[in-house]
Amino acid sequence: MLRIGLIGAGRIARVHARSIAQNPSTTLAVVGDVVLEAASDVASAHGARATADVDSVFADAEVDAVVICSPTPLHVDHILAAVRAGKPALCEKPVAMDSAAVDELRRRLAEAGDSAPAVMMGFNRRFDPSFQAVHDAVEAGEIGTLEQVTIISRDPAAPPKEYIAVSGGIFKDMTIHDFDTARYFLGDIATVSALGQHLDPELADTGDFDGAIVTLANAAGVSATITNSRHCASGYDQRLEAFGTLGSLTADNVRPTTVRRNTATLTEAQDPYLDFFLERYEAAYARELGAFVAAIAQGRRPSPGIEDGAAALRVAEAAAESARTGAVVRL
Amino acid sequence: MLRIGLIGAGRIARVHARSIAQNPSTTLAVVGDVVLEAASDVASAHGARATADVDSVFADAEVDAVVICSPTPLHVDHILAAVRAGKPALCEKPVAMDSAAVDELRRRLAEAGDSAPAVMMGFNRRFDPSFQAVHDAVEAGEIGTLEQVTIISRDPAAPPKEYIAVSGGIFKDMTIHDFDTARYFLGDIATVSALGQHLDPELADTGDFDGAIVTLANAAGVSATITNSRHCASGYDQRLEAFGTLGSLTADNVRPTTVRRNTATLTEAQDPYLDFFLERYEAAYARELGAFVAAIAQGRRPSPGIEDGAAALRVAEAAAESARTGAVVRL
Amino acid sequence: MLRIGLIGAGRIARVHARSIAQNPSTTLAVVGDVVLEAASDVASAHGARATADVDSVFADAEVDAVVICSPTPLHVDHILAAVRAGKPALCEKPVAMDSAAVDELRRRLAEAGDSAPAVMMGFNRRFDPSFQAVHDAVEAGEIGTLEQVTIISRDPAAPPKEYIAVSGGIFKDMTIHDFDTARYFLGDIATVSALGQHLDPELADTGDFDGAIVTLANAAGVSATITNSRHCASGYDQRLEAFGTLGSLTADNVRPTTVRRNTATLTEAQDPYLDFFLERYEAAYARELGAFVAAIAQGRRPSPGIEDGAAALRVAEAAAESARTGAVVRL
Amino acid sequence: MLRIGLIGAGRIARVHARSIAQNPSTTLAVVGDVVLEAASDVASAHGARATADVDSVFADAEVDAVVICSPTPLHVDHILAAVRAGKPALCEKPVAMDSAAVDELRRRLAEAGDSAPAVMMGFNRRFDPSFQAVHDAVEAGEIGTLEQVTIISRDPAAPPKEYIAVSGGIFKDMTIHDFDTARYFLGDIATVSALGQHLDPELADTGDFDGAIVTLANAAGVSATITNSRHCASGYDQRLEAFGTLGSLTADNVRPTTVRRNTATLTEAQDPYLDFFLERYEAAYARELGAFVAAIAQGRRPSPGIEDGAAALRVAEAAAESARTGAVVRL
Repeated sequence: MLRIGLIGAGRIARVHARSIAQNPSTTLAVVGDVVLEAASDVASAHGARATADVDSVFADAEVDAVVICSPTPLHVDHILAAVRAGKPALCEKPVAMDSAAVDELRRRLAEAGDSAPAVMMGFNRRFDPSFQAVHDAVEAGEIGTLEQVTIISRDPAAPPKEYIAVSGGIFKDMTIHDFDTARYFLGDIATVSALGQHLDPELADTGDFDGAIVTLANAAGVSATITNSRHCASGYDQRLEAFGTLGSLTADNVRPTTVRRNTATLTEAQDPYLDFFLERYEAAYARELGAFVAAIAQGRRPSPGIEDGAAALRVAEAAAESARTGAVVRL
Repeated sequence: MLRIGLIGAGRIARVHARSIAQNPSTTLAVVGDVVLEAASDVASAHGARATADVDSVFADAEVDAVVICSPTPLHVDHILAAVRAGKPALCEKPVAMDSAAVDELRRRLAEAGDSAPAVMMGFNRRFDPSFQAVHDAVEAGEIGTLEQVTIISRDPAAPPKEYIAVSGGIFKDMTIHDFDTARYFLGDIATVSALGQHLDPELADTGDFDGAIVTLANAAGVSATITNSRHCASGYDQRLEAFGTLGSLTADNVRPTTVRRNTATLTEAQDPYLDFFLERYEAAYARELGAFVAAIAQGRRPSPGIEDGAAALRVAEAAAESARTGAVVRL
Repeated sequence: MLRIGLIGAGRIARVHARSIAQNPSTTLAVVGDVVLEAASDVASAHGARATADVDSVFADAEVDAVVICSPTPLHVDHILAAVRAGKPALCEKPVAMDSAAVDELRRRLAEAGDSAPAVMMGFNRRFDPSFQAVHDAVEAGEIGTLEQVTIISRDPAAPPKEYIAVSGGIFKDMTIHDFDTARYFLGDIATVSALGQHLDPELADTGDFDGAIVTLANAAGVSATITNSRHCASGYDQRLEAFGTLGSLTADNVRPTTVRRNTATLTEAQDPYLDFFLERYEAAYARELGAFVAAIAQGRRPSPGIEDGAAALRVAEAAAESARTGAVVRL
Repeated sequence: MLRIGLIGAGRIARVHARSIAQNPSTTLAVVGDVVLEAASDVASAHGARATADVDSVFADAEVDAVVICSPTPLHVDHILAAVRAGKPALCEKPVAMDSAAVDELRRRLAEAGDSAPAVMMGFNRRFDPSFQAVHDAVEAGEIGTLEQVTIISRDPAAPPKEYIAVSGGIFKDMTIHDFDTARYFLGDIATVSALGQHLDPELADTGDFDGAIVTLANAAGVSATITNSRHCASGYDQRLEAFGTLGSLTADNVRPTTVRRNTATLTEAQDPYLDFFLERYEAAYARELGAFVAAIAQGRRPSPGIEDGAAALRVAEAAAESARTGAVVRL
């Protein structure tokens, strides 16, 4: 039984707390958040301890591994704290606010040496059953040579403006998931071209895009196209198509039921998409935790790792640059 | 070029007139209907002659074959007239109002001898591209041994009460098509069990059922289930499923476009079904005529023939009896 | 926290054990099965006690309610034992092997009086999210007046012949679920007509049907058609259509992913259906337990109750009679 | 009855010949092609005259309007010949090989004055029932403010290398249709960004791309993303999604039947897509001709016109430039 310390007690921390509680190989030992009330709230739901002294979680003798759900600016510090404490960590995306911070992290990790405990990045979509099935079928050669990947990724509604203000921008905050999905299929990205959109007038004063079209290609010329929007009337729109020489594979949205309605004006109408990431990616979060636990148990480096986080972040920075300048950015 | 005489100028005659005009191997020569205005109306649309002297069509030296779209009580006389005139005939369903009339027809045809011209029954659904594809895949063994056929067949709206009054009842008028479809898959029917429904209170005084559930089986125990209704809010509901040991095949409804709508309350909503038989079975009527023409050209007996019409009629009579008595009728 | 005693440790008991363990309001206290090893196996997976003395479970002071998963011939005894012990029971279907046994049960329950604890029947499909959504939409009048219900229900593969030999026949063993689903939509059934099929030659010597077509109607003439098969190549085929004056609602099969495949020979190909009831109805079992717990907590009689079990059993007996005689059976 | 002269007798000319023959308001008078055998072949199928003297078609007193299906380098000359002859013309895309040629065409047309007969561009996809239904629903405000259009457009197989060599490149030859579709939804395009792909090694020596990702935006920031490939295993892949503030609309591929297959390994598998443009866009070509005829009959300028052809060509040139330089091109 792997005893897990949870760093942070926000929205995503609750998702992980639940996965930890339901996984037969893990137990939630302690939740650390500077807001003790939040930590207690999450902890008590699963019979765990709570503390406002976040650093104490890393030192806790009853903790075997940590799941880092703190604000992004603290990720590097918390990853390093886990490594120093000799505890494997599963860290939410993105790995840091910018690539400079990642370089510093890399330098510090190098000092820790090869024996340092593993860090896994929380790119949960790699563990979505449908996306993974498409990926594995592509890897198995089912559609021949992969040529074009099309990703549609739209949130149901924009987060509060206060969140957007400190999010690092749409590419690092939202598209980062899709960049990782693109890398999941294409490997390293060679070129990035992006169009940013200001769709919702209500968000104009955030200075951030709330829509984006990004075209990526790897060195072999395989493309990935990402379409993002901060809003979608029908729910959390998460789809993917992989096209190759022998055919194509798609992963569709998920709905709460299989019900279809037929009336005088429409037929085969289904439910809106599952909304939001907690519901849509519930299985993905659980399987992500399972992969983390299995890697630790088997002494393997978990995947995706910090370099995957670093690569997705570089693509995000390149996309932001391309959206600003209009030029393709080569990595 | 096969010169065709059209017997009758009603709704279904117009469908055939159009098929004849569009088929590169046929031309519409003359339209005969006791209501000259109706005959002229259909004829003029395709540059054909019109006559109120229906018998003259059979004798017409410029006519190579006839398509019989007269009222059902006249079918037997018109089939015999065609046979006497030595002209192949395509006759709309049902072959007659009752099996006694078919026996009389058979006796008279026997007198005409084996060299008499062929008669084809207008069971158009055998020529629907989707139903035929399912049928041919079943015949090819794609789903192993056929075990259960499920037919959903609902009209968009009931015909006028005057029509119902002389229709011979739902089983001979509407279900007859589904009985032929069942025979298309099962061959000869051994047992018939039917439930009649009075669904629309407006039709209660017609004395006819406006809904029906019929269960058929052939001697080998393969079943066919038919669900009928005289109304369907979403249009002309025409579906079929063939289930066998190795899998199943379905034919879905047809819609005017492939458009799907997604809103805040529903997703993937499609158009209502094509409504009505003219639109839904346009390709089927054209291919039925093609099969008739090809059989004549090649000197083959066209299929389905009079015995198929007779068999479907016997099933219809059995269904009516079962709906009345509650007992299975064995044929 | 409701402490539950589980009666039986077979396949379906394991499903309930898992639901109990995952429900935040319930805990698995003890598992009773005459085969101690089986009881221990189920119990240990969830930290519960095991006993071969099944009767002791009812008397257990640490048990607040029981879930009865014993063989059908023991259901009546176990229901009565629970009632005598003053403990609410959730009992798997069917309530008994025949209606005579149900009559005896009723007589004995009447002696226990109105204050006897409630018994709920485990017709899990009423709690399937999709079936329930269709049901609730029908109740809400979304499709106007309900007219025809079509149920397709096929198991992926036949159970062992030894199971079939003691199962009571396909209607009581398998169709009983569909009879309850029909009653869920139609209420009391007035007429039953059934066709039994011998599809798989391997099962011929069981003497039981392995396919069935059943047509039910309530007093108002609303129909329900059930198509059963003991095998289905594509998995556990569980579908439902409710048709009414204003439209129709369908519940489709469930698949493990949303992936669709496109190749040179086919497009939009999806995964086989979830196979088998554990996977397909996982949510239904969990929600069924939730309904049981909620009814107890609120002092309500849980639904469906014993009379629902009795009614479904009567329909099953009528179907068996109709399949034998060919006549409609009126209830 | 509009008597039409057909300029050219190649693949696309045959499509138009058939539409003309089937349209009740048009008749095919004459087919002109320098290869007399080709002209005769097309003409004889529809009872028309044939000539190798293409210029004579414009002068023909029995010709009321022309449909221009000559090679692209001749389009400008043939448009001008029609205008000089006072005959309305429907001209296949693209209007010319480059924008310089269009400028010259414009100059010459200006000399002809406002009373010159109308020229319509053959962007057939605007007349596809599904694309048009999406377009009209967008215009009607059904999805609120349009924000993102996604176009997938893949040919089933690449044309011969000889064709590619003189095609003007993928953007002018293939994507030009999608550029017009984008303009159909977005109006004038403000920015163009393109990625060209060399997918099929067999085509490497053509020097042309055989895959492309193009991102367009209009002045209001509405985006259109186009994904092209010269090959697609499943057939002619033609899809479209329009996304707006209140929902989205999609148009799916078309298949020859509605059949779905279910086996032990897959379910709901449909037929490959209709292949190729003749089959897929048969209705679109017929409706395009209908729009041309209606505009002439009503004295309206047909749409899309030469300026639409010119605009699509400018976007194609910009896409080629962007694919070469990596920079966004502003129009």
